[in-house]
Amino acid sequence: MNAILTLSLKEDNDMKAAIYKGNKTFCTGESRMIPPGRGEVSLKVAYCGICGTDVHIYHGEMDRRVNIPQVIGHEVSAEVIAAGEGVTGMHPGDKVVVRPLKPGPPVPSDKGYTHIGKHLRFMGIDTPGGMQHYWTVPADTLHHLPSGVSLQHGALIEPLAVACHDVRIGRVEAGEHAVVIGGGPIGMLIALVIRAKGGKVLLAEVNEHRLKLAAELGISGVNPMQRDLAAAVEDFSAGAMADVVFEVSGSAAGVKEMTRLPNIRGRIVMVAIHAAAREVDLFSFFWKEIEMRGARVYEPEDFEAALSLAADGLVPLPALISGVAGIDQVQEVFEQIDRHPEGMKYLIDCNS
Amino acid sequence: MNAILTLSLKEDNDMKAAIYKGNKTFCTGESRMIPPGRGEVSLKVAYCGICGTDVHIYHGEMDRRVNIPQVIGHEVSAEVIAAGEGVTGMHPGDKVVVRPLKPGPPVPSDKGYTHIGKHLRFMGIDTPGGMQHYWTVPADTLHHLPSGVSLQHGALIEPLAVACHDVRIGRVEAGEHAVVIGGGPIGMLIALVIRAKGGKVLLAEVNEHRLKLAAELGISGVNPMQRDLAAAVEDFSAGAMADVVFEVSGSAAGVKEMTRLPNIRGRIVMVAIHAAAREVDLFSFFWKEIEMRGARVYEPEDFEAALSLAADGLVPLPALISGVAGIDQVQEVFEQIDRHPEGMKYLIDCNS
Repeated sequence: MNAILTLSLKEDNDMKAAIYKGNKTFCTGESRMIPPGRGEVSLKVAYCGICGTDVHIYHGEMDRRVNIPQVIGHEVSAEVIAAGEGVTGMHPGDKVVVRPLKPGPPVPSDKGYTHIGKHLRFMGIDTPGGMQHYWTVPADTLHHLPSGVSLQHGALIEPLAVACHDVRIGRVEAGEHAVVIGGGPIGMLIALVIRAKGGKVLLAEVNEHRLKLAAELGISGVNPMQRDLAAAVEDFSAGAMADVVFEVSGSAAGVKEMTRLPNIRGRIVMVAIHAAAREVDLFSFFWKEIEMRGARVYEPEDFEAALSLAADGLVPLPALISGVAGIDQVQEVFEQIDRHPEGMKYLIDCNS
Repeated sequence: MNAILTLSLKEDNDMKAAIYKGNKTFCTGESRMIPPGRGEVSLKVAYCGICGTDVHIYHGEMDRRVNIPQVIGHEVSAEVIAAGEGVTGMHPGDKVVVRPLKPGPPVPSDKGYTHIGKHLRFMGIDTPGGMQHYWTVPADTLHHLPSGVSLQHGALIEPLAVACHDVRIGRVEAGEHAVVIGGGPIGMLIALVIRAKGGKVLLAEVNEHRLKLAAELGISGVNPMQRDLAAAVEDFSAGAMADVVFEVSGSAAGVKEMTRLPNIRGRIVMVAIHAAAREVDLFSFFWKEIEMRGARVYEPEDFEAALSLAADGLVPLPALISGVAGIDQVQEVFEQIDRHPEGMKYLIDCNS
């Protein structure tokens, strides 16, 4: 039975949405439940995490893509309230997370990879997002949350899936030496996923608060402002140097370091978004036959991997939550992030 | 029987060597036959090609590695004259080519890849080379020349093996679209190997002489000074863009172009030696999940692939020979290369 549930659709002024109005400003508006069309599912959003991309939107850097005024947010856990025609396996009350990609019509240069193709629309950026009470999405964007994972932790599955994708692209194997440059939420999650896969990981981070958190989580860290990073990697690896390096810092300094660390045929995964061209030591690529691969978003298997890690308790998600706030507090939370950029994950409670 | 042949070892003033003396200067000296030690083979060199690296040596750019005065040269075809103790399968009169790598003691960061490892010595650069009448080398550097390939063409096997390695690193498959940026000898050989493997190839080159040669060999070319390269690749590939790009130009302009051409999950092979750091559009790596791999020298299988292509006549080696000169003319040939850098392969006849 996939009949549309209408019982819970009564107008209710408490059903709120956080709406980005441009120029570092959010307002609170009404979240209207859009009945699910064919192949769609309507959700009651539980939590929506704030991504670095959301902060870029807040700073006005993505106004070309966002259709202001717009609800943003794409790190969502939710309960199904209604499934549209043709949808199977999604029932009211099901707890789910959203893989927020809407692949568009294929073009030859996509080579079938429409999830990162030319006409991909990213939900919460190119289309309305989940920082609201109700959200209607394509059914094929949903993954069921395992019973042992709470809705609050479910909001961290999307960034964890990013990390799982990055580590998959890096082909990290048990016993290998990995270096993660940049210890923000994604860098930290990458380090934790590497450890969960049996890799040895060193986190390079300039912020002492983040290094302290890493240490608390049992992740070795080094501050490259205080110690030569290549020398630290040499010690850490007993001379083997890095089998794989993740550049997550987005900084020119990180790019300068990334080619010094790999061993012969070592790999670099380009996770960060470098808005400006960077000076790169291409000679090292030639000399050591280094491989570098860009890594963007995820595929369904990365979400499954993330859900599995979370269900098995292999990644300490609670430790990464810096704070939880209501929809009314969204403006305040973004201002707080600007003041304290070293924090990890802030979640919006969309039932608030 | 691997007894050392001494019959042909009589002193002969005609046995010459071209000796690099530093400061753009060669002199002609005597080539002494060094009897082969255990595991070694003594060769009578037939032809020695001049590599771009030799030109760098001539320009004084590698004086830190070269032990002046030194015989250089590493693109060698030869006849076996004597095999040392413990050598099997090498007999006087055998026609061979040399894979000029002396892997050194392994270190952990080599990961077993000692052929590009920390202590690799490149014969003809780090140790004496083959631009002379006699040359004694480790037996495991030798590959037999197939009967259908002449000694003159054999001198092109080393650069052809480079191209085979580059194309292998690029994983070019039949029907794929490849772009080669830079049409010098290696770029041209890469284009020809791609064609031999059934790939579709477009050569980007600013020099009209080289474009003309490419056209004569049936390789499509484009001059990026005259036409936007991305637009040309779009046309060439009917919108599919490049599955793989080979950066062989060594230029900042080539690096700027290389990220514009790949399709989603397209590959870049970094063949060129970029002495200076280059500005690289890392955003494209992230956005299109581009892969880049450095490619350096070769492994035995690349030599076997090159010999097989040559034996099957799948690469028009004669067309790539710009000139053949005697050892006495080495100085003259390097001066000529400086005046006309658009030439392809110059060979030294070491029996001259």
